[in-house]
Amino acid sequence: MSDRMHWSRWGDPARTTTLPANALAMLELAFGPPAPRPAVDQQTVQLPAVGLPDDVLDALRDAIGVEHVDAGVEPRLLHTGGKSTPDLLALRGGDAAAAPDAVLRPADHDEVQALVSFCSERRIAVVPYGGGTSVVGGLTASRDGLVAVVAIDLGRLDRLVDVDEVSSTAVLQAGVSGPRAEELLGEHGMTLGHFPQSFEFATVGGFAATRSSGQSSSGYGRFDTMVVGLKVATPLGTWELGVAPASAAGPDLRQLVLGSEGTLGIVTEVRLAVRTKPATAVYETWRFPTFVDGATAMRTLTQDGINPTVLRLSDETETSLNLAKPESIGADSGGGALMVCGYEGTDGRVERMRREVGEVLQGLGGTPLGAEDGEQWAEGRFDAPYLRDALLDEGVLVETLETATFWGDLDRLYAEVKAALEGALSAQGTNPIVLCHISHVYRTGASLYFTVACRETDDPRAQWYAAKQAASDAIVAAGGTITHHHAVGRDHRPWYAEEIGPIGTDVLRAVKRSVDPAGVLNPGVLIP
Amino acid sequence: MSDRMHWSRWGDPARTTTLPANALAMLELAFGPPAPRPAVDQQTVQLPAVGLPDDVLDALRDAIGVEHVDAGVEPRLLHTGGKSTPDLLALRGGDAAAAPDAVLRPADHDEVQALVSFCSERRIAVVPYGGGTSVVGGLTASRDGLVAVVAIDLGRLDRLVDVDEVSSTAVLQAGVSGPRAEELLGEHGMTLGHFPQSFEFATVGGFAATRSSGQSSSGYGRFDTMVVGLKVATPLGTWELGVAPASAAGPDLRQLVLGSEGTLGIVTEVRLAVRTKPATAVYETWRFPTFVDGATAMRTLTQDGINPTVLRLSDETETSLNLAKPESIGADSGGGALMVCGYEGTDGRVERMRREVGEVLQGLGGTPLGAEDGEQWAEGRFDAPYLRDALLDEGVLVETLETATFWGDLDRLYAEVKAALEGALSAQGTNPIVLCHISHVYRTGASLYFTVACRETDDPRAQWYAAKQAASDAIVAAGGTITHHHAVGRDHRPWYAEEIGPIGTDVLRAVKRSVDPAGVLNPGVLIP
Repeated sequence: MSDRMHWSRWGDPARTTTLPANALAMLELAFGPPAPRPAVDQQTVQLPAVGLPDDVLDALRDAIGVEHVDAGVEPRLLHTGGKSTPDLLALRGGDAAAAPDAVLRPADHDEVQALVSFCSERRIAVVPYGGGTSVVGGLTASRDGLVAVVAIDLGRLDRLVDVDEVSSTAVLQAGVSGPRAEELLGEHGMTLGHFPQSFEFATVGGFAATRSSGQSSSGYGRFDTMVVGLKVATPLGTWELGVAPASAAGPDLRQLVLGSEGTLGIVTEVRLAVRTKPATAVYETWRFPTFVDGATAMRTLTQDGINPTVLRLSDETETSLNLAKPESIGADSGGGALMVCGYEGTDGRVERMRREVGEVLQGLGGTPLGAEDGEQWAEGRFDAPYLRDALLDEGVLVETLETATFWGDLDRLYAEVKAALEGALSAQGTNPIVLCHISHVYRTGASLYFTVACRETDDPRAQWYAAKQAASDAIVAAGGTITHHHAVGRDHRPWYAEEIGPIGTDVLRAVKRSVDPAGVLNPGVLIP
Repeated sequence: MSDRMHWSRWGDPARTTTLPANALAMLELAFGPPAPRPAVDQQTVQLPAVGLPDDVLDALRDAIGVEHVDAGVEPRLLHTGGKSTPDLLALRGGDAAAAPDAVLRPADHDEVQALVSFCSERRIAVVPYGGGTSVVGGLTASRDGLVAVVAIDLGRLDRLVDVDEVSSTAVLQAGVSGPRAEELLGEHGMTLGHFPQSFEFATVGGFAATRSSGQSSSGYGRFDTMVVGLKVATPLGTWELGVAPASAAGPDLRQLVLGSEGTLGIVTEVRLAVRTKPATAVYETWRFPTFVDGATAMRTLTQDGINPTVLRLSDETETSLNLAKPESIGADSGGGALMVCGYEGTDGRVERMRREVGEVLQGLGGTPLGAEDGEQWAEGRFDAPYLRDALLDEGVLVETLETATFWGDLDRLYAEVKAALEGALSAQGTNPIVLCHISHVYRTGASLYFTVACRETDDPRAQWYAAKQAASDAIVAAGGTITHHHAVGRDHRPWYAEEIGPIGTDVLRAVKRSVDPAGVLNPGVLIP
């Protein structure tokens, strides 16, 4: 899958886009005169020399076939880092220091297991590579004390291994991407219902390793709630987990692998709870006077046990930008806070949900706006990262971050993170626009997803890191989690350590030492 | 709470019961002439000498107050073992070898923490004691290499620490029993909705430590799904977990503490998702031609997203015994497989659920029987353990065990466990009655709960262990979990090791060594 990705931009190179005139006009209004920042030419990017000795390359070729071990420039570049704005900025500036020494493409679990065992023996760092969509530095391994770094690309593990229609489960290989999962399950009349922003490229293994959560999480749940079994290649051998939907047989060790980001093993297969493909899907929008009013309405729905499939609320600033309708950027949005409610299921279920939700929302100050904007949101829901590249071309720094907490603390978390972002960027002379939405709700709390845009300084990576540090400090101080659905990677490690405390850190390190004694699995990622 | 328990029977001594004549007649029919086996007199039970040196007892008294350290015979006896049939048989026969050396009753988290730290330094085994309702040997610590064993009774930690009505969460101390939790939350118009068989005595800390699941799990979920935060006293100090409903910040370490059975620390406080107390509760029964038909109906409901609050199905044998109506034991049950469907919520929600469920069940061969038997089931739902004592008095061995697996494997698991129990007990010349019900359902699978009764041999503990071994082997062979909601304790350890495999075992041991380097936390329990 990853080969469809542009080397320094999000997604399919054929879908590279530029900003419409109305958006450019708005940018100029917000951030001053144009100051484009094109990326360097791909040909000029220098990669570090390959650090793998010939005997190692030969052994790898013996293990998985000569054509599946590639130390060439292009595949290495295409497996360099992830898709955070700092990652893109590095590549756009010609910095590919994070490139792996080789890209390995095993065919199946046994080959992954052989590679993991070999790399553990030979002290070679291993980065598991699915869609390459990490936005937290999850694909950049430390080389400290190790011979080299290889990317294990799971793209050839793209099969549906088993469907159990009675149990409503399916076993998918780790390299299956979001669209391929839906295609494979669709042949059996089923859906997974997992649609994160990264859907078009991210993979089942990555969803598991990062505790992903999709845009339909209100209805279908987080990815971790869909996982009933896992198969993992570790330096100690194959680890299989999950014999029942739920169990009281000790701690749930599946929950230790979920979110382990390749540091405890490489997930090669996942057994997932699946659902009947919905007959109908309707997406509607509602307007609330304020973000707080809309959030109260979402909370009421969820605590009353009414769960539309999609539930999403933009704050006043995000609402005002009309981001779901690029041709209307800069035009009047109608004000207030826009909510998207999506309903999927049988015709009867969809109708009942719409009625139930509608009654609650109208009682809480919502104004129904019909289906037009909702459908447009649904159509464009995976396009935002393309827009980011177009903004970076124009010298506009854009990045996102997200957190979650309990409902009672949400207003404070929102205010403090927003203030931290505005403060840190204004202090650099680049007043930002800060947008926020809620896209994942629970009975007890919700996530907050911030998008930040401002004019780039001369060193946009340092510029962003200052803002990110301020926001992360604010998150920890306000009692939120450092990430609700993007994982820890390298970027969140200091705050993650604060979040889990010294005992949590000791426990994680102990687990890590026990399954990865040589420390080759995605070193530098996650473990504080 | 535990002091309300009888020393060798379940529950409140004032509620000791005997069997009605119809039940005695049925027993004679099934198992031959009466052969009562009364328990020994409490006064004759010999406890081991107290192994705690005086300086240790003095230090413990300094830590929590002289009146809260008790090495007397009666409190030690009341904290001996749990309430499995083997535990009861041992006590009924006068064997109290499992007694702790002293019972400690700390007032709060800080005192628990002080005790745990002290016991770790002085190499004293610590058994956390909530309601004393373990049925898997979870309260019997190994003394190997340790100075003594103390029971830390959490009965004084019985407060509601905090209610957050906006977040719909409550913080309860670990020693809060089921009824006390409902009482404390009821004052705020809330419910926890956790009603396991042990409800009347078991505690919040125990629910967390054992991954408990209650009779209303279809509607309210397992206990582990209600937990959003934990406070734990460990030898490394206080460990607090949970800053958001859900997170992508690494593995979910809460899920490592849940199910850890006191081996990684003592849970002292739990932050729980709570719900509005239901206005209405209706329990109805349905009859299906066969257990398989009923199970298919349950599966259909759950996979269609229709979740009554209670969903429970007895197999043909359990149905035939009318256990929910003691006065009707032995009378005609009407045959087939009896299902209980319970609905709790607002009047409107209850009505809608009843209608939805009714449509599905009638379409799948169910016959509605109305509310009378359902209400009777709800009233008597916590009485079964009292009945067990009355049967033990009559020389009838009764015990339960349970498992879970995916729907596609459920029929096989049912058949093989039933055959194993029947085979192992018949081989000892004691043909059993084996009953089964499904009481916890998921989209992907369900639990099976077996009850076994037969005439006791001369050594009923050995008799049961042979049956338990056969059943456990059958569970593992059929791919089920060794326990769906009773935990591992000492009794399930060999099969638990098979279930999690060598890597899972290594990981658990590594975690244990890291938080409990002296190995004093409930030694001999859980960790293979």
